[in-house]
Amino acid sequence: MTPAENAQLALLLEVAGTPKPGNVDRRRDLDDLRFEHFLAGAVGSGEGLRMAADGVSVGAAFERAVEGMSQQEGGNTQFGCLLLLVPLVKAAAESDGDLTPDESDEGLTPDAVTRVVESTTVADAADFYRSFEHVDVAVGEPPTDASELDVRRGADAIPALESRELTLYDVMELSADRDGNAREWTSGFGRTFAAADAICDDDGPVPDRAARAFLDLLAEEPDTLVATQHGDEVAAAVSEWADDARGDEAAAERLAEALVAEGVNPGTTADITAAALFVALERGLRV
Amino acid sequence: MTPAENAQLALLLEVAGTPKPGNVDRRRDLDDLRFEHFLAGAVGSGEGLRMAADGVSVGAAFERAVEGMSQQEGGNTQFGCLLLLVPLVKAAAESDGDLTPDESDEGLTPDAVTRVVESTTVADAADFYRSFEHVDVAVGEPPTDASELDVRRGADAIPALESRELTLYDVMELSADRDGNAREWTSGFGRTFAAADAICDDDGPVPDRAARAFLDLLAEEPDTLVATQHGDEVAAAVSEWADDARGDEAAAERLAEALVAEGVNPGTTADITAAALFVALERGLRV
Repeated sequence: MTPAENAQLALLLEVAGTPKPGNVDRRRDLDDLRFEHFLAGAVGSGEGLRMAADGVSVGAAFERAVEGMSQQEGGNTQFGCLLLLVPLVKAAAESDGDLTPDESDEGLTPDAVTRVVESTTVADAADFYRSFEHVDVAVGEPPTDASELDVRRGADAIPALESRELTLYDVMELSADRDGNAREWTSGFGRTFAAADAICDDDGPVPDRAARAFLDLLAEEPDTLVATQHGDEVAAAVSEWADDARGDEAAAERLAEALVAEGVNPGTTADITAAALFVALERGLRV
Repeated sequence: MTPAENAQLALLLEVAGTPKPGNVDRRRDLDDLRFEHFLAGAVGSGEGLRMAADGVSVGAAFERAVEGMSQQEGGNTQFGCLLLLVPLVKAAAESDGDLTPDESDEGLTPDAVTRVVESTTVADAADFYRSFEHVDVAVGEPPTDASELDVRRGADAIPALESRELTLYDVMELSADRDGNAREWTSGFGRTFAAADAICDDDGPVPDRAARAFLDLLAEEPDTLVATQHGDEVAAAVSEWADDARGDEAAAERLAEALVAEGVNPGTTADITAAALFVALERGLRV
């Protein structure tokens, strides 16, 4: 499979894995966000993912992917997943040697994806802000000194980006302290690659491996979307509960029921799980 | 969404619909054929479906779609679905007016897809036979006077196709009496369009509509894959049982358990369900 196909498959395998407490999965829907919205989101993301593999800039490919993802009635399904997948797809395609035959063909590595994200421009940042106009994304308040950069302003924030000469990487640095996806961008996708290794080393059907990787990631670090929506204490408590549920299927199912009932959605952890599935597929994991 | 995207989404919605007695669905796997194999099959089919929309011949697009579908370890997941979807996608793309601006833009109709299948050539038939080399497909014995055209011969049958000057449409006519998909080809996709109307007129989440459409199709006509694998009597009994289960969710669940346990797989009915979902999406059904 091509990098773009592996990314689309990663989106589908992520949502198929169950139980993934608090998230839509093969066995659970939320009230207005159902399994089929994720299927349609994965299909619609395809064109943007192929653009990333074909050498289009991260921002333009991401905006196209988000636009396509949004062609379903559930709202935001995979915005965060795509924020991780687009640079990973670009790095994977480049390391295949098709686009940069002069670089050593080292495969998809933390260094390769870091080169991609560090090369982003102010234009990529502008495309990122435009992406928020396609779909409602749950985000926290911007820093007090950065309200003009609030992503909820969409394209209206672009003049501020341009006057400050902020690249997309710079934007991610500004929110790395409170957004787990931004932190992946600025730390060599460390949790993504570690989870990919765990998925490759695990046994059994891939969606089951994805569910276990999700629970491990959630236990290891509080989910930043949960922290944004419910506060740091809830996020910490969810991670403790996830830790207790590791290796205990019945406990994981109870946690899934409880989080869905409470409307607690560890979405950032699901994003990193999807990114890890992509890296695992690129490293030869077969479905 | 484009026709190729709608076709990919139709593949995913078909497998998500539950209960679809005897088939893999959101709640059930078979022993060696699991949900994730269908996810990967749908992803891999994308390139061939896009070729069909871009005006490539039915045979070449179908062979590419089957090759891509086969890049997973479950074996044949969606061969029959693709046999219906490829000409439907081609007809939908042509009726969008992009490819044949001189024809009236009547939309995707039985006449439009019939023009596509009737235009197939001997080269399309050869590509169809080559497709059987990518994956094992459950098929019946060929007619006694046509053993040299046994699809299990793969590309070895091409000289016979060529000497008899058989188009892909001719090949479908030869098996229309015992294969429900071939019968769709030679009868204006009648069951496909009727089921699409029913799906559009139905209410609720699309995968639930797909499951109801599947049960209706199965009740209305014995599944030809079941007839091939288990005989006409079993196929007729399954259809009677499906008829009893219509509108009775508990009975449909019992039927699903029973057919999975017996290894009875109404796969042709699932193929027509996927094709019907595609037509419904082209007619504006939203997920």
